[in-house]
Amino acid sequence: MYYHDKRLQYPVRVETPDPLFARQLQQAIGGIEGEIRVCLQYFFQAWGARGPTTKYRDMLLHTATEEIGHIEMLATAVALNLEDAPLSLQETAAESNPLVNAVMSGERPRHTVEGMLHKHLLSTGLAAFPGNADGVPFDCSHVYASGNLAGDMFANVTAESTGRTLAVRLYNAAHDPGMKDMLSFLIARDTMHQQQWLAVLEELGGAAALPIPNSFDQSLEKQEYSYAFFGTNKDGEAPPAGRFTQGASMDGKGTFSAVQAAPLGDEPVLGPARKGSGAQSEQM
Amino acid sequence: MYYHDKRLQYPVRVETPDPLFARQLQQAIGGIEGEIRVCLQYFFQAWGARGPTTKYRDMLLHTATEEIGHIEMLATAVALNLEDAPLSLQETAAESNPLVNAVMSGERPRHTVEGMLHKHLLSTGLAAFPGNADGVPFDCSHVYASGNLAGDMFANVTAESTGRTLAVRLYNAAHDPGMKDMLSFLIARDTMHQQQWLAVLEELGGAAALPIPNSFDQSLEKQEYSYAFFGTNKDGEAPPAGRFTQGASMDGKGTFSAVQAAPLGDEPVLGPARKGSGAQSEQM
Amino acid sequence: MYYHDKRLQYPVRVETPDPLFARQLQQAIGGIEGEIRVCLQYFFQAWGARGPTTKYRDMLLHTATEEIGHIEMLATAVALNLEDAPLSLQETAAESNPLVNAVMSGERPRHTVEGMLHKHLLSTGLAAFPGNADGVPFDCSHVYASGNLAGDMFANVTAESTGRTLAVRLYNAAHDPGMKDMLSFLIARDTMHQQQWLAVLEELGGAAALPIPNSFDQSLEKQEYSYAFFGTNKDGEAPPAGRFTQGASMDGKGTFSAVQAAPLGDEPVLGPARKGSGAQSEQM
Amino acid sequence: MYYHDKRLQYPVRVETPDPLFARQLQQAIGGIEGEIRVCLQYFFQAWGARGPTTKYRDMLLHTATEEIGHIEMLATAVALNLEDAPLSLQETAAESNPLVNAVMSGERPRHTVEGMLHKHLLSTGLAAFPGNADGVPFDCSHVYASGNLAGDMFANVTAESTGRTLAVRLYNAAHDPGMKDMLSFLIARDTMHQQQWLAVLEELGGAAALPIPNSFDQSLEKQEYSYAFFGTNKDGEAPPAGRFTQGASMDGKGTFSAVQAAPLGDEPVLGPARKGSGAQSEQM
Amino acid sequence: MYYHDKRLQYPVRVETPDPLFARQLQQAIGGIEGEIRVCLQYFFQAWGARGPTTKYRDMLLHTATEEIGHIEMLATAVALNLEDAPLSLQETAAESNPLVNAVMSGERPRHTVEGMLHKHLLSTGLAAFPGNADGVPFDCSHVYASGNLAGDMFANVTAESTGRTLAVRLYNAAHDPGMKDMLSFLIARDTMHQQQWLAVLEELGGAAALPIPNSFDQSLEKQEYSYAFFGTNKDGEAPPAGRFTQGASMDGKGTFSAVQAAPLGDEPVLGPARKGSGAQSEQM
Amino acid sequence: MYYHDKRLQYPVRVETPDPLFARQLQQAIGGIEGEIRVCLQYFFQAWGARGPTTKYRDMLLHTATEEIGHIEMLATAVALNLEDAPLSLQETAAESNPLVNAVMSGERPRHTVEGMLHKHLLSTGLAAFPGNADGVPFDCSHVYASGNLAGDMFANVTAESTGRTLAVRLYNAAHDPGMKDMLSFLIARDTMHQQQWLAVLEELGGAAALPIPNSFDQSLEKQEYSYAFFGTNKDGEAPPAGRFTQGASMDGKGTFSAVQAAPLGDEPVLGPARKGSGAQSEQM
Repeated sequence: MYYHDKRLQYPVRVETPDPLFARQLQQAIGGIEGEIRVCLQYFFQAWGARGPTTKYRDMLLHTATEEIGHIEMLATAVALNLEDAPLSLQETAAESNPLVNAVMSGERPRHTVEGMLHKHLLSTGLAAFPGNADGVPFDCSHVYASGNLAGDMFANVTAESTGRTLAVRLYNAAHDPGMKDMLSFLIARDTMHQQQWLAVLEELGGAAALPIPNSFDQSLEKQEYSYAFFGTNKDGEAPPAGRFTQGASMDGKGTFSAVQAAPLGDEPVLGPARKGSGAQSEQM
Repeated sequence: MYYHDKRLQYPVRVETPDPLFARQLQQAIGGIEGEIRVCLQYFFQAWGARGPTTKYRDMLLHTATEEIGHIEMLATAVALNLEDAPLSLQETAAESNPLVNAVMSGERPRHTVEGMLHKHLLSTGLAAFPGNADGVPFDCSHVYASGNLAGDMFANVTAESTGRTLAVRLYNAAHDPGMKDMLSFLIARDTMHQQQWLAVLEELGGAAALPIPNSFDQSLEKQEYSYAFFGTNKDGEAPPAGRFTQGASMDGKGTFSAVQAAPLGDEPVLGPARKGSGAQSEQM
Repeated sequence: MYYHDKRLQYPVRVETPDPLFARQLQQAIGGIEGEIRVCLQYFFQAWGARGPTTKYRDMLLHTATEEIGHIEMLATAVALNLEDAPLSLQETAAESNPLVNAVMSGERPRHTVEGMLHKHLLSTGLAAFPGNADGVPFDCSHVYASGNLAGDMFANVTAESTGRTLAVRLYNAAHDPGMKDMLSFLIARDTMHQQQWLAVLEELGGAAALPIPNSFDQSLEKQEYSYAFFGTNKDGEAPPAGRFTQGASMDGKGTFSAVQAAPLGDEPVLGPARKGSGAQSEQM
Repeated sequence: MYYHDKRLQYPVRVETPDPLFARQLQQAIGGIEGEIRVCLQYFFQAWGARGPTTKYRDMLLHTATEEIGHIEMLATAVALNLEDAPLSLQETAAESNPLVNAVMSGERPRHTVEGMLHKHLLSTGLAAFPGNADGVPFDCSHVYASGNLAGDMFANVTAESTGRTLAVRLYNAAHDPGMKDMLSFLIARDTMHQQQWLAVLEELGGAAALPIPNSFDQSLEKQEYSYAFFGTNKDGEAPPAGRFTQGASMDGKGTFSAVQAAPLGDEPVLGPARKGSGAQSEQM
Repeated sequence: MYYHDKRLQYPVRVETPDPLFARQLQQAIGGIEGEIRVCLQYFFQAWGARGPTTKYRDMLLHTATEEIGHIEMLATAVALNLEDAPLSLQETAAESNPLVNAVMSGERPRHTVEGMLHKHLLSTGLAAFPGNADGVPFDCSHVYASGNLAGDMFANVTAESTGRTLAVRLYNAAHDPGMKDMLSFLIARDTMHQQQWLAVLEELGGAAALPIPNSFDQSLEKQEYSYAFFGTNKDGEAPPAGRFTQGASMDGKGTFSAVQAAPLGDEPVLGPARKGSGAQSEQM
Repeated sequence: MYYHDKRLQYPVRVETPDPLFARQLQQAIGGIEGEIRVCLQYFFQAWGARGPTTKYRDMLLHTATEEIGHIEMLATAVALNLEDAPLSLQETAAESNPLVNAVMSGERPRHTVEGMLHKHLLSTGLAAFPGNADGVPFDCSHVYASGNLAGDMFANVTAESTGRTLAVRLYNAAHDPGMKDMLSFLIARDTMHQQQWLAVLEELGGAAALPIPNSFDQSLEKQEYSYAFFGTNKDGEAPPAGRFTQGASMDGKGTFSAVQAAPLGDEPVLGPARKGSGAQSEQM
């Protein structure tokens, strides 16, 4: 079960509220690269963890719990960036029009309602919501928890890689020093989280964990195709040479090669449509 | 641009059609672990590939093109498994009732309309569709193409890991020798595809590719938190010791440690609701 | 604006309630072939109708309004089919087990909770909902209203074709005489609705309405490709000969031909990744 | 920020694992009536809370944090119910066929793979996932946080009402004493949560909080229509008499009446389609 | 069944078309706070209404039918606001650039294609569609009809509360007198609709209707937890005192208290992964 | 199976990159009118084609394969249009502010980050993705393959009609000569594809293919309602006279008429809520 502290994991401050940056931050909350995703992903991996020990359940609970606090920080940042957002369409002409301000002062214009996410004004009353920068709600099909520990660790590295890439893009897009400071913390945490899932993969044996799942008897797969790069160029031009076309395979269990793909099967023929199946008479 | 051959990449045959297995195969077509996903993922990574050479664009096109043929094989397998599926609810009682058959013969009963995916009967006329085993349509938010080559390779390993895990589960669930044969081919291809993306990661420098993206100046992140495992146990119990709490980090750029998480920030206070923002008067 | 009458457009009666048929009927309510779709589609086409007269706005309003009554009939049919559905998992063994009934009496067994849509039990309290036979909610992206009248008429013919195909499949699956009677009415209405949208296409000029939109100056399109069937067989095998490869085109504005597709463009080369865009250093 | 304890809020035990009940429990995890929804709903309401005090932010954080533990209990219950679920289709005939068991022993048959949620077998490896009993992933558009405190309290009462209704249905469907015990706890918590949001509504002034939002000057609305029940019966038959057609309104600011609806506007006429807008020529 | 009148329920006029306001109005059509939602919600509640009388079925039909006319008014308003929207990207520079107009005249600039919802231009031909202000299509999972009349009434109050809050925000954002007039009517109707569902709750017994569902025997729930506010602060700090922590409960069946939450269960231990379940060997 | 050529089907060049046009092009990739849809639609129709010959399977494979190349062209066009898109919010004020450029030079201003699709910056690293111009991912429920060949042909005409309408709108919105050239090719292909599906309908017998499906015995439908236009005007005003109210029906099997709709059924009465179904006591 769970507990909370009213304080934030790391300070969140905004000197110059910017509703357009509020919009961009939503991607880090409810985008597929965002914090809701990793939070739920680590929780569901923990809650379904099977194995001889509870070690990885425990480990996952620590990090999943940390991630709730990251959603909280970002939601707070969105609300602070919306503090003086325009509430009406007229404001775009007068008080906050990019044109008037910029022409007269040479300064960065305040962003207008045109660039805002309308949901921030119409649906949340100037606060965050669990969706992305386009207003698309987060959909939990992105919570990867496959029941295979090694596969899940690769999913976690992926999530933290896209997450850190997003955080870097937000850092580069930001202009507010408070926001840059907050992001420099989140980027550091993403660094650690990439590292820790890779560390688990080493504990699981590195190459010995491959191919995933390693519990399937490889003699049952068509092994002549297990380490062959198939070229599909129409004229048979070879694929580019690389580590993936020659040498020992990464799992040490085969040797890479490159071959031109060709049909091993025939043209498929399905039975005619059955009476009563709703097809046209001509199909029967 | 693209070309086709009417023949299949590998033979698809079904000796004993089974509408319930048709349902399960849908997961490999339109599930998040399925072939539409990897096909589109590799295509979009290829079409957006930036860099000094077109090597990875080329490589991705070969494999993306191969994957179209995998969707084709599975769609054919679904249609063949539906060849004599029940079209009416009455059939469940008489000809194909599990009860009558099983009691009388001791053999495997034919599956009934109760276990079928109704979409196969009502919407497709006994054919496959681009959705999963629950009838949920595939949603292209699962096509990961982040613009970061290393992150995308991890996403591809993940896709092939969940894909091979699914194929293994289908192999174990299957009873038809033709289906087991087809799956033994697809499992082999998933083995290769896991390997090839890992090979690209080696080409990209292995640890030197980390943390992803490696183009961000790490001096700008809060480095004191970049290699620290944060424990969140309420009573301060340490996280389980592991490779992720001690020793050199996986990227060789830091040293793992474990620390108890504690708030670095304060309780956040948002401004009151603004007049005209649709809040209750008491919030203003 | 709109009015109602408490009576149904056509009688709905169920002699033998069947929760599995209730499930199948959901497809006709909230499936993409269903009545919510056509109802909203005709309404949105009406409400956005532009043109010199309000004739088609009027016509669409009549039929859209009729369709509300079809949703109502089907929702009533679902509720009636759920009247004695099992509420607990134990009932599947005793009172309503297919096995006991069928073995003892030779009659059609009552369907059990296994085949039910769980949403009917858990979420609606034995009533209909606006989703399909798999429990997937209807999503209004299927409401086609493009602002082009001729294109919308083809969309309407399509909707009524898939709708009538579904209704025929439900008729064939049904065992209850009341349900067959209700469906024989809905099938007749789908017949009419297919006809009426085709009649509008005739009013719009038949071939003169093509290609859609007919307001675009065809001299601006690359006309050498406007009536050519492109073959994409890898080995250049010609496509099957048919009406679509020879003779005058359907719009009378060209002549069909068949040609082998070949690249007219070059291999695309994108610029390298930009500094600050979150790519790997190797991509820059 | 947040903390965890490895122990569960309340004991979860399963004496007779049942994969069909595992399926039903998913509705309480990832259905719109489920725990992910209330958890995120209370968190986002808290993180966006504006007003002169942080009282309601605090209160919401307590309950949101409790709800994480409810998801955890249910996810654990799903995994325990899947402990001996069938992994192959053949098992449905022999070991776990409802027919053989029930005929021979008269006992409750073990449920078969036909009734299982295939995602439990194919995608999660016998564990829970954040989706509902039909396999549809939870979609965060159901997280209601409108920025209006009173409206949000009604949304919370609704969530806990549908939540408790679902829990009661699961209690009635269940056969396992451990599951009934767990549900009796969750039902009690839903009782409390209904009560506490109603208590906040009382604190906000009861009728004085109405109409929501109460910060809008009612003189600006067309007040002659603010307390009138509009009848839409085609033949003008009056609506059923009730509290809503007569007497003082619930907010004490008006008097209910019933009137027949009639058009106050004209038939709308839109401008013709514009050149270049992609319409048919006949629409211009 | 249903009927229509070509005239609108209330006049819709637009003096100064504004494509950005057209975008915002979409939220009231196809947002979760919008009119499609309440229309379908009241219809499905009516069509599934069970009980000794048809009183509430009747009442719901009146209001559901009224709501169709509200969608129609809003769709008309969207089309009128799009009458002179820019069709090309060049127009943003010349004729309709905010800059040129505003600098030269000091008047409100015409909004440009940058702020438009592109679907209005590309997909609908300058008309409304059943989706929200971000272009996300309405998804019918938001149609709440639980089979529990009291719970559904709370859902309806919620829908009308978020609906009126949205209408107020649109009123505040609007600049066109015709639009403000239309919204002042819709706000009034939302006032009435909030009132009428609350009136039904009074008819259902007020507190006697609680907890929902009131048909469950409360002696079967763990009553020691039915009226206790659980605090989850890590350090045991008490929750804020309020009506919800002391005094008689709102249903008069208990007394509120506040207690610190603590685990009543143990750390859960799942069985190891089964052979054939697709896990890693190390998990078995 | 499938093959590729690295070259594009038609040249794609962009003289003046425009991130706003990149956004609009997404609709042609991942909108419901877009190329992913037709590509998958023709593939799934081919893979499920039943009938006495493989003619239509073959034909569909040719065109489906061509469509992959169209997605590729558009994805390339998106990436080229994003080549110099702004990466930070500050750029909107200084280098690329519409105001400064336009005032000073009178030329078309560069579009700013406000109008961009944020996903292009934050999620894809300046490349295309499989979603529409609003950032909503493509959802494969739009892949129509009903198992009825004639119905599917109408679906294909619809897809190419909305597709060509979209391409025309993009052509009109575009300012870049390279983009206009690419679109003039795609418009031509849409012309051909409309024609070819209509040609198949002629091969299927034209009117003889109606009503769809033509395999259902029309004597089983309520034929008195099969060719009658139902008027639903409240006051009985006749529908507008047209081809659809008089003369022979389009299938030559009936005669159109117009009649006022009236209830043929009674007010439906459902049974009371059952004990244990989670309703209120008052409903039982």
